[in-house]
Amino acid sequence: MIYLDNAASTWPKPEGVADAVKKAIVEYGANPGRGGHRLAVQAEQAISGTRHKLAQLLGVRDPGNLLFCLNTTHALNLALKGLLREGDHLILTGWEHNAVARPVEWLKRHRSVQVTIICPDEQAGWAKQVEEQIRANTRLIVTIHGSNVIGEILPIADIGEVARKHGIFYLVDAAQTAGLLPIRLDDLPVDLLAFPGHKGLYGPQGTGGLYASPDVPLVPIIQGGTGNRSEELEHPGERPVGFESGTPNTPGIAGLGAGVEFVLQTGIEKIYHHEMELIRQLWEGLTRIEGVRLVHPKPPVLPILSFNIDGVDGNEAATILDQHYHIAVRAGFHCAALAHRSLKTADRGAVRVSPGYFNTSEEIDQFIQAVREIAEAFRGFSHAW
Amino acid sequence: MIYLDNAASTWPKPEGVADAVKKAIVEYGANPGRGGHRLAVQAEQAISGTRHKLAQLLGVRDPGNLLFCLNTTHALNLALKGLLREGDHLILTGWEHNAVARPVEWLKRHRSVQVTIICPDEQAGWAKQVEEQIRANTRLIVTIHGSNVIGEILPIADIGEVARKHGIFYLVDAAQTAGLLPIRLDDLPVDLLAFPGHKGLYGPQGTGGLYASPDVPLVPIIQGGTGNRSEELEHPGERPVGFESGTPNTPGIAGLGAGVEFVLQTGIEKIYHHEMELIRQLWEGLTRIEGVRLVHPKPPVLPILSFNIDGVDGNEAATILDQHYHIAVRAGFHCAALAHRSLKTADRGAVRVSPGYFNTSEEIDQFIQAVREIAEAFRGFSHAW
Repeated sequence: MIYLDNAASTWPKPEGVADAVKKAIVEYGANPGRGGHRLAVQAEQAISGTRHKLAQLLGVRDPGNLLFCLNTTHALNLALKGLLREGDHLILTGWEHNAVARPVEWLKRHRSVQVTIICPDEQAGWAKQVEEQIRANTRLIVTIHGSNVIGEILPIADIGEVARKHGIFYLVDAAQTAGLLPIRLDDLPVDLLAFPGHKGLYGPQGTGGLYASPDVPLVPIIQGGTGNRSEELEHPGERPVGFESGTPNTPGIAGLGAGVEFVLQTGIEKIYHHEMELIRQLWEGLTRIEGVRLVHPKPPVLPILSFNIDGVDGNEAATILDQHYHIAVRAGFHCAALAHRSLKTADRGAVRVSPGYFNTSEEIDQFIQAVREIAEAFRGFSHAW
Repeated sequence: MIYLDNAASTWPKPEGVADAVKKAIVEYGANPGRGGHRLAVQAEQAISGTRHKLAQLLGVRDPGNLLFCLNTTHALNLALKGLLREGDHLILTGWEHNAVARPVEWLKRHRSVQVTIICPDEQAGWAKQVEEQIRANTRLIVTIHGSNVIGEILPIADIGEVARKHGIFYLVDAAQTAGLLPIRLDDLPVDLLAFPGHKGLYGPQGTGGLYASPDVPLVPIIQGGTGNRSEELEHPGERPVGFESGTPNTPGIAGLGAGVEFVLQTGIEKIYHHEMELIRQLWEGLTRIEGVRLVHPKPPVLPILSFNIDGVDGNEAATILDQHYHIAVRAGFHCAALAHRSLKTADRGAVRVSPGYFNTSEEIDQFIQAVREIAEAFRGFSHAW
């Protein structure tokens, strides 16, 4: 099996991730708690260890501002609903994932939040268009960092500067970039950043989190037991415990620690360099195949590329790749209604291919060859008709 | 280490749980999706397999009404906020965990939900008091099934009958009972039931869920990608996908499947019988020690018991048990502000001891001996003063 669906979840995971998870279950499966018995302390140390490694990787001075969530969707819902108030105005881009677009749609319908969607044709246009749309009641700007449909990056430093200048909060969806692009949060004009554990950070599924700057008046969206102030009925808002109610995913977070350790040891530059070599090889190969249409014509700057083959439905192409060639890619809309509308592929979606650190150049060659064969077969087929 | 903190998380886990988690990470770490490539299908099958086993254990005809959550707290927040509307009236008990009490407090402050708390002295009083408090705008009754502080069970069938009679929804918090007491949801007058994966179902932390009867007009509280209707901006409300936005905790849910399988194979009766033998031994032993005060005087009907030792702070007692005797118990308020107010222990909390299926009679003897020594030492100490 050649796995080229790393934008959904990276796989395989580095050595040590599965073992760290197993160890947490077998050796210290208790509820984390600083003041508890030794197994509870060990569980707490595993969680705290991962938080510190993440803080190191993401350039965050105080690890307590990193809040663990079930996944990026949960983190984005927390950021949006934990910050926006009735009647606030929000600016987002046409490239957003449904994990942003759908809670925003909900806020629009149920909390009277006003929404402006921008989508310029040029890279230079993002910050400019954001600034043009700012109103007196604009409270938040939210943008994806790297598109999950095409391999493009948004200029978050520029957009963040605009946000800072106008005293507006800025939320970044780093689902495709955390662990892959250098992000130093203490030095960036970014107030909130949601990240997955199971993609570029190489942790297991069921992990992710939200960075929230201490200046953001964020409130929890889930209330419950926090292990502190147990005798109080009002939910405490301290970070991180107030945002991590209930028993956490200790094994998953322990595994995430091993994944982040791998990224720290390997180095983001090396990971990015390897993946970019593969995606350029892929881009060059695919552009030479008759009947293959890239959703975005430019060479990708992230290891993600979407395409369609003339005369072949995307799902059918993905199924042939899976069944006949044992290659895993993803077809459809990639949970990105807005992005496909912006990219004018809302009628059919696309096949997305996303290499990861553990893919090889040979695998990419095999993939290109497979696409060539499919394109040729369907070309012959449509000619016969 | 003698682990007697099973009411927080059961530990150790049965053979196979950690391996099922590891296998999910190592062998099919892709995003679940019926229509996807083979690794995605395998991940989807693992999740679906766990859902079916849970449905079998909990007596639920349609597994699609079982919604996976991060933990019980998440499940209870979903039930409460996904059902209650501005100005609704809600009845709950004085035994509730903070996972109910705190979101209820939030709903009271921010959604004008009216709240009535009942707490009768007699078992027979629960259903009666619930019925007495029903108003025209009562929409929901919520009760814990088994107390997490004392080993008592609430008569959920009786309370549910009252709810049905008045056309009111009934939510049960089964944090301490799922996997331990027989629960056949299709035959019970219960509309919603929240359960943890990591306690009586023997799965890993980071798992849990909510059963929602098809008759409950529940709406999701987290919006995002659902793997279906990706091209639509409005979040779909279908079960289960509409309630499980974002990448799920596939490895954790796979491990939960192994845990539920263990419960199904072993049999709830056998598990309950063994744990009740241990807790009765514990109760008898502790009642004979001078200076030990049980929070609740009656013999427990669940494997949970709380006590205090005269002259010893609960946290100190737990620390001595941990450090000197290598016994893990929990001191404090157990995230149960309401329960401790109801039990008149709000000033000091209590030490909670909760044996599990893997504890032995010899371990309970060691625990009783340890408590006896601590009580004697502090008795001598206070006499000396």
